[in-house]
Amino acid sequence: MKSDIQIAQEAEMMHIRDVAASAGIPEEDLEFYGKYKAKLSDELWEKIRDRKDGKLVLVTAINPTPAGEGKTTTTVGLGQAMAKLGQKAIIALREPSLGPCFGIKGGAAGGGYAQVVPMEDLNLHFTGDFHAITSANNLLAALLDNHIQQGNELGIDPRQVVWKRCLDMNDRSLRNIVIGLGRKADGMVREDHFVITVASEIMAILCLADDMKDLKERLGRIIVAYNFKGEPVTADDLHATGAMAALLKDAIKPNLIQTLEHTPALVHGGPFANIAHGCNSVRATRMALKLSDITITEAGFGADLGAEKFMDIKCRMAGFKPDAVVLVATVRALKYNGGVAKDQLSEENLDALAKGIVNLEKHIENVQKYDVPVVVTLNSFVTDTEAEIAYVRSFCEERGCEFALSEVWEKGGEGGIALAEKVLETLENKESHFHPLYEDNLCLKAKIETISKEIYGARGVVYEPAAEKQLAKIEGMGFGSFPVCMAKNQYSLSDDATRLGRPENFDIHIREVYVNAGAGFVVALTGAVMTMPGLPKVPAANGIDVSEDGHITGLF
Amino acid sequence: MKSDIQIAQEAEMMHIRDVAASAGIPEEDLEFYGKYKAKLSDELWEKIRDRKDGKLVLVTAINPTPAGEGKTTTTVGLGQAMAKLGQKAIIALREPSLGPCFGIKGGAAGGGYAQVVPMEDLNLHFTGDFHAITSANNLLAALLDNHIQQGNELGIDPRQVVWKRCLDMNDRSLRNIVIGLGRKADGMVREDHFVITVASEIMAILCLADDMKDLKERLGRIIVAYNFKGEPVTADDLHATGAMAALLKDAIKPNLIQTLEHTPALVHGGPFANIAHGCNSVRATRMALKLSDITITEAGFGADLGAEKFMDIKCRMAGFKPDAVVLVATVRALKYNGGVAKDQLSEENLDALAKGIVNLEKHIENVQKYDVPVVVTLNSFVTDTEAEIAYVRSFCEERGCEFALSEVWEKGGEGGIALAEKVLETLENKESHFHPLYEDNLCLKAKIETISKEIYGARGVVYEPAAEKQLAKIEGMGFGSFPVCMAKNQYSLSDDATRLGRPENFDIHIREVYVNAGAGFVVALTGAVMTMPGLPKVPAANGIDVSEDGHITGLF
Repeated sequence: MKSDIQIAQEAEMMHIRDVAASAGIPEEDLEFYGKYKAKLSDELWEKIRDRKDGKLVLVTAINPTPAGEGKTTTTVGLGQAMAKLGQKAIIALREPSLGPCFGIKGGAAGGGYAQVVPMEDLNLHFTGDFHAITSANNLLAALLDNHIQQGNELGIDPRQVVWKRCLDMNDRSLRNIVIGLGRKADGMVREDHFVITVASEIMAILCLADDMKDLKERLGRIIVAYNFKGEPVTADDLHATGAMAALLKDAIKPNLIQTLEHTPALVHGGPFANIAHGCNSVRATRMALKLSDITITEAGFGADLGAEKFMDIKCRMAGFKPDAVVLVATVRALKYNGGVAKDQLSEENLDALAKGIVNLEKHIENVQKYDVPVVVTLNSFVTDTEAEIAYVRSFCEERGCEFALSEVWEKGGEGGIALAEKVLETLENKESHFHPLYEDNLCLKAKIETISKEIYGARGVVYEPAAEKQLAKIEGMGFGSFPVCMAKNQYSLSDDATRLGRPENFDIHIREVYVNAGAGFVVALTGAVMTMPGLPKVPAANGIDVSEDGHITGLF
Repeated sequence: MKSDIQIAQEAEMMHIRDVAASAGIPEEDLEFYGKYKAKLSDELWEKIRDRKDGKLVLVTAINPTPAGEGKTTTTVGLGQAMAKLGQKAIIALREPSLGPCFGIKGGAAGGGYAQVVPMEDLNLHFTGDFHAITSANNLLAALLDNHIQQGNELGIDPRQVVWKRCLDMNDRSLRNIVIGLGRKADGMVREDHFVITVASEIMAILCLADDMKDLKERLGRIIVAYNFKGEPVTADDLHATGAMAALLKDAIKPNLIQTLEHTPALVHGGPFANIAHGCNSVRATRMALKLSDITITEAGFGADLGAEKFMDIKCRMAGFKPDAVVLVATVRALKYNGGVAKDQLSEENLDALAKGIVNLEKHIENVQKYDVPVVVTLNSFVTDTEAEIAYVRSFCEERGCEFALSEVWEKGGEGGIALAEKVLETLENKESHFHPLYEDNLCLKAKIETISKEIYGARGVVYEPAAEKQLAKIEGMGFGSFPVCMAKNQYSLSDDATRLGRPENFDIHIREVYVNAGAGFVVALTGAVMTMPGLPKVPAANGIDVSEDGHITGLF
């Protein structure tokens, strides 16, 4: 069987000029990065901004398991299938982070015959967006420490610096560091931390900004520290905004690449799905809506995190109205949720399936709370039995959802036709009455409780004393109207990663709360969140190589 | 008077496709980065590699002073002038570093009407080469610390880690840090250091590598640490080479941009000129030699550092034979060398000029030691008087050098015609018998002494005991045949920055010596060298901005 990178490298790509032309984008509005990548110019936006929006389809999933669900693969394959059916479709995805490429996870560009290409470029530097974010993030940090060094006119309290440096690398040694050692000229000693670039608030800002004006306003509002009086110090206070924005002037432009079947794909931005909102940029989605009849996009992790944040943060801020949601599951993952061990998932087990399918059931109910029609799809594996598939199909149909099998990993767009047809039927026949889960004017605690009870199925919310204090401070600072970005483990609907299926009788524990004033949301942490991953004992990097003629191997 | 960025932004650029065509490069061999930047493909090299080399002209200068010399401006203007004379000329320059842009120095793309454009792109992310180097550097660091964390099979001594992390940022707080704090999962505690990206050995390697094969061999040889037995541990030992090379697969391709007058310019690589060799990549120079009749390139700092390393490191390794050297001076800088204060340089002062011109004299003699013909040029300032210019002219002509005034800052290529004509005359009439200053088989101490006495004019060399030990260890490890890269202050021919003119009766003090096994040279430090700059009290970043339509201001 061919590996993803083999399939990707064997693909005959079209010049991106021709992919763009197929979406009605003239060459003059492209900024090429080689032959197969391009940024879309600001002038293009001016030309298309008054067009009517196409339909917006979100692809999300049940809670992730080690068995794998294939959300990106389904998104890409669905786009390919739509094109096969003669639909004008565009895919909108996140850009992958460099860090995990060298760790365990490998690249993130779909899989099998449902991938976006060029896969190596996408997984390595792509068009430099993440490097630009890293630079802007670290410029702000350098300006902050320089301000302290040069007299600290703003009275920044070195114990209350909240801005962290970042690198797009899995590097655990940088999680907790002490900087400024040496002589007087080498800076003021303080504790500091590096996060991975995708966890930088600048990533979230870039993905939520409407345009350069909005980007600058958001950058300027970033709270970098508190002064000795406890008042916030912002990027604007450090006169850092203009230079940061200059570093991001190209990074805010969406990137165009293609699928293996030449479907246009806008791949832009990639915020963490725990401490941030986990979906591609507002600008890319907005452009896709103007350029296509159907935009297919995805959100990070399962629907409890990804879809909830997509709806309550991204759609709220950008004014998007999703028309349908595709919920991806696999028979294997449902059996895993039903208690089957990882090495026994290949055997038919209808009892375990029945036990585990409650996870899917809860996600269906959740999406229905937003009044958006749901299509469930099973990403097919060779080990799935007909009885298992039939069971899931009737389970979904009983709950008012469409159902379709997806075989895009094996067959590309051809394997997604059944799903694409169900999605088209849904778009035609079922109206979306999308609304966010909660109103802006609810207080922060009420927002946290609404998400916890309605989406996670919790009994209640327990706040640690520190979190209570932080909530009061944030409301006092005037950020009470922000939406809440929940940082919860992705494996369980609860905040206990081991409780699979559809847990009941649990509380959500809020340990810490902080505001991302630039991104425009309040982050509520339910546990320790890893914002700087580490490398495993045998890192994927060990197996990556490039030949003398530039051919890359070992990326997967 | 217009600022550099104003002039650059008002320039009408040609599409880079057309600039390439003027150098005989077909569009199929370009990898576009927007409309005005392109990388040259590996296929191009295969097509042109058997061509005869054109002539190679190095632009260097007297020791830098606060008065400014304008070496890059002269290089760019000379290229523009050659084109005006109908010559097929290409300019080969270093890429600027992001860090200094936000500090004091501003951008580095020439000045006035002798600039390469797009100036903002060049000074910000350009084609991402430096970001790729940062990533490769920090991947190696992460793999090293991960190796220690995961059991330290190689027995790496945490007190003898020599590999440093890097960022392309002026950030003094990262000079001396402690990493790995926190819990067991957060790494092993050790002292660490960040350098600016241009100081990374990977930058030097990228600039000296012949091709991907050579790049990988050099990367693999990098010594990252010593084990508890004192033996070197390399990047190959950490299985890091392939992944690092994959990160650099596009960065090793030279970048093509244009001057204000559309002369082709290859701008590629930018190693420090103190702890590294300070010139653009071998690959870019080699391509320029095949694509043009005259390649005009420059080297960092004054001729004592820049030209010496260009000749003894770059030309030695790459097999280049420079045909002529242009030595840039200004009347103001010569008077400064003659003891005039910075605020009195505008007044005519022939006595001070006569006193300071010994600096120029020594650099002329030095270049002549390589048996390469010299053309001296005065980068003209409005305050220069006719008597001053006449004095310098006859001084040079008495020493067998051609002389020409250069007015390229004010007039562009037109202002460089006199200089270009002198260079052309020299190329036609005076033969270069280039040879390096010393042979490979000299021992390291003899190499250091040769450079110190012959080039700097020192009486002798004094070694600190640590340096003696390090030299013995490096020779013992088998690196005695490497050339030496001297890290000396750039302001004086001696190792005391305050001794201007042509100092005599001084010793060179070698404090520390280490080997860059990948780059292939031994670095000898004569004093404290700053490898991570800091920001000033009012950083240039404070004045940089970008408008809503992407127009950048405040870069200079």
